[in-house]
Amino acid sequence: MDLDVFFAGTAGAVPTARRGLPATLVRRGGERLLFDCGEGTQRQLVRSVGLADIDAIFLTHYHLDHWHGLTGLLKTFDLRDRDRPLSVHGPRGLAEALRIVRPLVGRLGYELSLAEVAPGEPLAFDGYAVVPIATRHRTVSVGYAIVEDERPGRFDAVLAERLGVRPGPDFGRLQRGERVAGVAPGQVVGPPRAGRKIVLSGDTGPCEAIEVAAHEADLLVHEATFLAPEADRAAQTGHSTARQAADLAARAGARMLALTHLSPRYTARQVREEARAVLPGAVVPRDFDLIEIPFPERAEPRLVRWDEAAPLPAGPA
Amino acid sequence: MDLDVFFAGTAGAVPTARRGLPATLVRRGGERLLFDCGEGTQRQLVRSVGLADIDAIFLTHYHLDHWHGLTGLLKTFDLRDRDRPLSVHGPRGLAEALRIVRPLVGRLGYELSLAEVAPGEPLAFDGYAVVPIATRHRTVSVGYAIVEDERPGRFDAVLAERLGVRPGPDFGRLQRGERVAGVAPGQVVGPPRAGRKIVLSGDTGPCEAIEVAAHEADLLVHEATFLAPEADRAAQTGHSTARQAADLAARAGARMLALTHLSPRYTARQVREEARAVLPGAVVPRDFDLIEIPFPERAEPRLVRWDEAAPLPAGPA
Repeated sequence: MDLDVFFAGTAGAVPTARRGLPATLVRRGGERLLFDCGEGTQRQLVRSVGLADIDAIFLTHYHLDHWHGLTGLLKTFDLRDRDRPLSVHGPRGLAEALRIVRPLVGRLGYELSLAEVAPGEPLAFDGYAVVPIATRHRTVSVGYAIVEDERPGRFDAVLAERLGVRPGPDFGRLQRGERVAGVAPGQVVGPPRAGRKIVLSGDTGPCEAIEVAAHEADLLVHEATFLAPEADRAAQTGHSTARQAADLAARAGARMLALTHLSPRYTARQVREEARAVLPGAVVPRDFDLIEIPFPERAEPRLVRWDEAAPLPAGPA
Repeated sequence: MDLDVFFAGTAGAVPTARRGLPATLVRRGGERLLFDCGEGTQRQLVRSVGLADIDAIFLTHYHLDHWHGLTGLLKTFDLRDRDRPLSVHGPRGLAEALRIVRPLVGRLGYELSLAEVAPGEPLAFDGYAVVPIATRHRTVSVGYAIVEDERPGRFDAVLAERLGVRPGPDFGRLQRGERVAGVAPGQVVGPPRAGRKIVLSGDTGPCEAIEVAAHEADLLVHEATFLAPEADRAAQTGHSTARQAADLAARAGARMLALTHLSPRYTARQVREEARAVLPGAVVPRDFDLIEIPFPERAEPRLVRWDEAAPLPAGPA
């Protein structure tokens, strides 16, 4: 099943010419999960992958740059005659935040459900869970881990055939755990394999809970609002330096680190170089870049630049 | 004095890949007046002319697509350490609208003043006035006319010299209305000349007050949410067709008509063609296009396409 992370907005606090406010879209099969929704997110999506029906939205905290785009998105879904329900998740404060903006949205023709999440309590979806992680920002804040369910173990077809099982339906039975022609599943099916895991830090200072969650993650998307010389300022404001994010990713053994929430005071190159001194594979996605996350036995996660992936879609001129 | 209108967002209701939500920047000398401020306006400005300190903001009504970007803009001005006061003007309902979003903005380090405007009561600025005009939308709504003060009449230097006045300070005295060397100002200074005038319709069905205000305007920026075949739907929703806007501009004798607030259901070409059947000079600006408005004795108003005017400014990559 395809799994990727699309970077719809990679700036922090204020947008720049090239970077929109925070929004990250996780796409798994046909599902679309949006993490944070800064002002302008709906337009970022329309300009790139399209404003597909999003299945669920997860907010990391209630600083305006991370959720101000939600109001317009809710309204636009209504104007587009959405009828599927939409769930919005966020840490404590979600109901109050939505209470404030609800008068701006007006009546919606679809069902909107709000769910305040608790760190460590997984939200179960079909084939994966979204796990909120307590983080260290200046306000109530969480990151999220997207954790796929375990996959069945590897099936050794060559061995199964050698043991006398005929290719076809009997292979399926063995893989589902049934005994076939005297062969036990355990003889030809390996131990269950972990699903893939993506961790999104949201805004946070270096945080042990994120490090634990990111243990052997396929991808850690971590904020890097500052560089090492501004470590004090990062600490005061509940943010991380690129160096701190890279150190954390290295300790966690994450397979890939993507840095986001960039400040206009730095270039992407500066951020990348600081992280790469620790972790040579660290990347700094631009808006509309994506990271593909294949199953680990197939290939490594891969950054796909937007200009490689697709041109700007044609729109009304 | 330079005067132009910069189109920061020309979509209506929902943004498209190419068009942002409503925002129009009027630039006169060093002053910047922003009319409407849809979601994403701050980014549109950062991507184009830069987020210069805006002197005053004018809202036409409180449908979300016309003012949702104000909240983020107010916040960003604060993050950028703005210290100049900012005034926000709008029709009845402004205080209530701002009351809703105020908790999202938090404390501002500059003075924010709100002023509810009354149709027909001009707001005086240095060298011009902004006049609210009652319009016909589905809610309390106004358009605005930007009306420059009268300019002094043309000074006939050749005649003045022939009458014995020496070029230099005496010319200035005559132009300021003083009698010099037996010559009366009226002999060499023509009658006062009208200043330039721009009218912005906001969202409205065809509206007599806009037509009156647009009498011999240098530029009428009028909404064209629909085309003629959808005239019924336009009437139901308090909008205009391109044809209606062009008819109105023709009756008013406006020197130039620019259509905006485009619906994604039409192409710009369709909108332009419908208007040009009535008014061959009608234009449909794209985002980041501008219209220069020279004094009428010098040149006609002129649409300048963004790609002619300037490339995307370099930003952090």
